[in-house]
Amino acid sequence: VKKYLITGVSGFVSRHFLRYLDETRPDSRVKGIDIERFVLGAGEYPHISVEFEAANMLDCAALEHTLLEFSPEYIIHLASFSSVAHSWKHPVESFQNNTNIFLNLVEVVRRLALPCRVLSVGSSEEYGNVQKASLPLTEAQPLAPASPYAAARISQELISQIYCRGYGLDIVMTRSFNHIGPGQRESFVIPSIVRQMVRIRRGAAATNEIVIGDGSIVRDFVDVRDVVSAYQLLLEKGEKGEFYNVCGGQGFSIREVVDKLEQLMGINVRVRTDESMLRPSDNQIIIGSNNKIRKRTGWEPRIPLERSLDEIILDCEKRDRL
Amino acid sequence: VKKYLITGVSGFVSRHFLRYLDETRPDSRVKGIDIERFVLGAGEYPHISVEFEAANMLDCAALEHTLLEFSPEYIIHLASFSSVAHSWKHPVESFQNNTNIFLNLVEVVRRLALPCRVLSVGSSEEYGNVQKASLPLTEAQPLAPASPYAAARISQELISQIYCRGYGLDIVMTRSFNHIGPGQRESFVIPSIVRQMVRIRRGAAATNEIVIGDGSIVRDFVDVRDVVSAYQLLLEKGEKGEFYNVCGGQGFSIREVVDKLEQLMGINVRVRTDESMLRPSDNQIIIGSNNKIRKRTGWEPRIPLERSLDEIILDCEKRDRL
Repeated sequence: VKKYLITGVSGFVSRHFLRYLDETRPDSRVKGIDIERFVLGAGEYPHISVEFEAANMLDCAALEHTLLEFSPEYIIHLASFSSVAHSWKHPVESFQNNTNIFLNLVEVVRRLALPCRVLSVGSSEEYGNVQKASLPLTEAQPLAPASPYAAARISQELISQIYCRGYGLDIVMTRSFNHIGPGQRESFVIPSIVRQMVRIRRGAAATNEIVIGDGSIVRDFVDVRDVVSAYQLLLEKGEKGEFYNVCGGQGFSIREVVDKLEQLMGINVRVRTDESMLRPSDNQIIIGSNNKIRKRTGWEPRIPLERSLDEIILDCEKRDRL
Repeated sequence: VKKYLITGVSGFVSRHFLRYLDETRPDSRVKGIDIERFVLGAGEYPHISVEFEAANMLDCAALEHTLLEFSPEYIIHLASFSSVAHSWKHPVESFQNNTNIFLNLVEVVRRLALPCRVLSVGSSEEYGNVQKASLPLTEAQPLAPASPYAAARISQELISQIYCRGYGLDIVMTRSFNHIGPGQRESFVIPSIVRQMVRIRRGAAATNEIVIGDGSIVRDFVDVRDVVSAYQLLLEKGEKGEFYNVCGGQGFSIREVVDKLEQLMGINVRVRTDESMLRPSDNQIIIGSNNKIRKRTGWEPRIPLERSLDEIILDCEKRDRL
């Protein structure tokens, strides 16, 4: 029986991680913490035990109490203010709720001398604006943040390295690329597009126009179910102090995603660019190499983009009916 | 008349910066803030106007009030918990009092849209453990923090870059090497050694033994008076968004400094290494190149190590008599 502490348990990735544990590690005991409430559906995770505790990770004392009491083998740090757009509007809040909460977490682990492994989740945004010649990005790529969110994530990584090397904590780091999948909040780009298109298909929109930011940016989309299996493998097999790209290895522009959605949904839409959705200095193209994690853990992404999109459409329609 | 806001005004470097302004920019108006009290000697800075305000920079609201009211042209950010040793013992405190206070500062400048230039003071510690082949270190050297303090300083630099590029703030950055000079606290290595040797010379010590950490580490010592003239030149001539080494360009081991002190003071001492003063992963050797700042601003260091040491000895003797 392994005990997992999951920070940010109410979030998109956590819910998929819980399902993954429920299906593959049925003996697991989970304690989840979050600043947002956690609603557990009846029979949602039938095999694992899941406890929830409301907690603000900026409060070190509460965090210490929780960790001391639960004494997990694994800590998966998924709590994050992960929106780049939000970080431009609220840079201090973004920094505190990415970097400072992580620092508090590892500091408590250090002070309590807890024998556990921590998964520090980072972001492909850390790479910043890269030259095409550098693609696909390996972990050796120099980091060059282009947003407050990215700066916060790099700071988190610096802290991880110091706590590993200086204090001997057991931390494995990720640089996770753009997740997609059912359940993601509609402030993120793909669900926002899908929502607009679902409305058009069922005749609820005035025109067949959808509004997006920069359609030419290219991202390496990876299904959240593949992401959570990567996280479990990194907890079990990742090398202490190392960081791993978690990505699909392929790039698609937002425009291409819209094309695929048109095919899947059997509709045609007109795309309008909203200048106000463009960010001060957006990374044009991000594609990662997943060689390092494949080699170390045997992980590979299994869910192609079309299947992810199909399920996002279904999820959106289901939410609409509720 | 230029208005300067100096953060950490009660500190070692600030006092020298005030004297420098008093001697070279007599019309200046200064507002100093600090969490520690600021004691102004009678007639200490006869030409400039200096006001003090007690302030904790973790309190954004107070900071906003001060900046709005004073509206400086120049902000010199000297507030810092700058001890590497302390950062190993109190990593969270170190991070907050280096990175978070700086983030609060630039965030307030951004929110108020203050038209001012900010000098973000960083540290040579950001370079971390370097290969001898990389010496002297130029600003192109990759950063590799080896202490919580260094991680905090790099995070500060990342924040500077985002606020420059993303929000258009006017920030010039430094990577300042080891400062020495009269007035430095005795928890730092050189004044601590000088104090021990002064006690030996006046017969107040039981033996002629001094206790140090690792005597073989090499540092690029630069006199604090040269540091403050560099800071003024960077405010006036530095390029926005750029970072500059502030260093002497020469390296001396702690052991060599002890030898020089023996000569200057006419005594011989025995050196004992205290293992408890060794840090988890100390940088063995740090020597910087000051080409970039020389080229851009015409700055050069003027005070040789012997003169610095001589004045530190005098200062220590004077403090002892008080």
